[in-house]
Amino acid sequence: MSKIRAAIVGYGNIGKSVLEALIATSDFEIAGIVRRTASLNEDIPELAGFKVVDNIKKLENVDVAILSSPTRKVLEQAKEILALNIHTVDSYDIHNTIWNVRQELEPIAKTHQAVSIISAGWDPGSDSMIRALLLVMAPKGITYTNFGPGMSMGHTVAVKAIDGVKKALSMTIPMGTGVHRRMVYVEIEDDHTYAQVANAIKEDDYFKKDETHVIEVESVDNLLDKGHGVHLVRKGVSGSTDNQLFEFNMKINNPALTAQIMVACARAATRMTPGAYTMIEIPLINLLQGDKEALIRALV
Amino acid sequence: MSKIRAAIVGYGNIGKSVLEALIATSDFEIAGIVRRTASLNEDIPELAGFKVVDNIKKLENVDVAILSSPTRKVLEQAKEILALNIHTVDSYDIHNTIWNVRQELEPIAKTHQAVSIISAGWDPGSDSMIRALLLVMAPKGITYTNFGPGMSMGHTVAVKAIDGVKKALSMTIPMGTGVHRRMVYVEIEDDHTYAQVANAIKEDDYFKKDETHVIEVESVDNLLDKGHGVHLVRKGVSGSTDNQLFEFNMKINNPALTAQIMVACARAATRMTPGAYTMIEIPLINLLQGDKEALIRALV
Repeated sequence: MSKIRAAIVGYGNIGKSVLEALIATSDFEIAGIVRRTASLNEDIPELAGFKVVDNIKKLENVDVAILSSPTRKVLEQAKEILALNIHTVDSYDIHNTIWNVRQELEPIAKTHQAVSIISAGWDPGSDSMIRALLLVMAPKGITYTNFGPGMSMGHTVAVKAIDGVKKALSMTIPMGTGVHRRMVYVEIEDDHTYAQVANAIKEDDYFKKDETHVIEVESVDNLLDKGHGVHLVRKGVSGSTDNQLFEFNMKINNPALTAQIMVACARAATRMTPGAYTMIEIPLINLLQGDKEALIRALV
Repeated sequence: MSKIRAAIVGYGNIGKSVLEALIATSDFEIAGIVRRTASLNEDIPELAGFKVVDNIKKLENVDVAILSSPTRKVLEQAKEILALNIHTVDSYDIHNTIWNVRQELEPIAKTHQAVSIISAGWDPGSDSMIRALLLVMAPKGITYTNFGPGMSMGHTVAVKAIDGVKKALSMTIPMGTGVHRRMVYVEIEDDHTYAQVANAIKEDDYFKKDETHVIEVESVDNLLDKGHGVHLVRKGVSGSTDNQLFEFNMKINNPALTAQIMVACARAATRMTPGAYTMIEIPLINLLQGDKEALIRALV
């Protein structure tokens, strides 16, 4: 069996974890890592022995590119790389535009006989699959997705943009039924007061709907932890039977799980017909290493 | 949009729940119910207004047959019905022969341009999908499937076959890490002693590996409850990160959930290319009512 040749595009938190996941998986080999020119010369010990380039065209026989860049860069990158007849996987996570991204990439993927799997991660991603399965099992009812406790990347970036904030961490705390508390830890610039900063945070669009607590700390770095969690709950109706109860819980390292799921989707990309897909459009078996008979015997 | 015409084959606990699920679902219509000749004349109020026949050939334009008969009858029925170019869905639940059933039905389905979805229910079925997803998320580790508390159909039938047992109920109690206790409630014939019956049960192949308690009761009927549960747990490794923790819990009415999932698979059968499938081979979106855009916007 020839191995799947994967390129890692972008080398931040997610890219590092994608490298670890690829190394741990025997059906892949690493074609190389694509980084911005500026960071090509950084001395990163774990990249020794891998080809590091500034353009994916400089790598040979790439089957699939795992886009580990910030969400806002992913669409442009996917278009360029699909046009090279290379499959793409991304973890695009702006929920209300996922359909649009899918529709934009679909014709490009088809034209170039490639597969693009979008929004591969845990939410969107595996949580989406759980939500879909719970809807299969109980078509009427309410699903609540409760996040955390864990660091919200989006909220943390929003706090950092506020005047007077030196460093920040926004934690998401689940209060049940999809309601979240925001615990914001900040280091404050000397020329600003706690009151100024706390008010600005609480009035920000990211925070004004939620219960928000702002706490001044000596060191934000000492609080950082890549753990996260989800508690997904549905109470619904199967046929004419009410009160069917379901819940899914996880406590996970965030980049490690995102990367692992992206690698599984990179595998699935080699098994699908050309086009763009979200994870709920992919048979689970296509995400898994191994042959069909062994997987069905072990799992079904 | 034309509706999917479904036939219910067999009308026991599952068949009744399939009827309820079909009535609750707007994209199906009921072509009819297939029963043994002997039971055609029974007066069953909820079947008034539906066509009840002894052979599926007597129903018109059936798209899909939902096989609600005992597991051991399902393979022969599926073969006959697929040969009529009608899709089939079953909840075949003998785990170690599921692959063989799939392989036996696959060529027949393909020859007759039909789809056969096998082992559609909650275990095998939705639990299989959860197990597959957890393996995607953490490829190394151990998954435990803990059943109950709830009635085990297989164990109850085994107890009823033992000399001196008038009525029986075998409850499965989860003890964690996939270990189960069996609580067996029996009514005993006058010519047998409790000791005789209890020993025979504990020495039966179904029970001898497990901690088994036999309890004599006045009335088994008063204990019957169609509720069941699952607690599925995985601790595993994503990439090189240990201790990723996942759990799935449900408390459900057993026949209602099985039937709801069979109906979803009947829908999926109309959307797949000819062949035989287990649920881990089906994209989740194919199981759901509604159009692709709306589902992706709501779930992903």
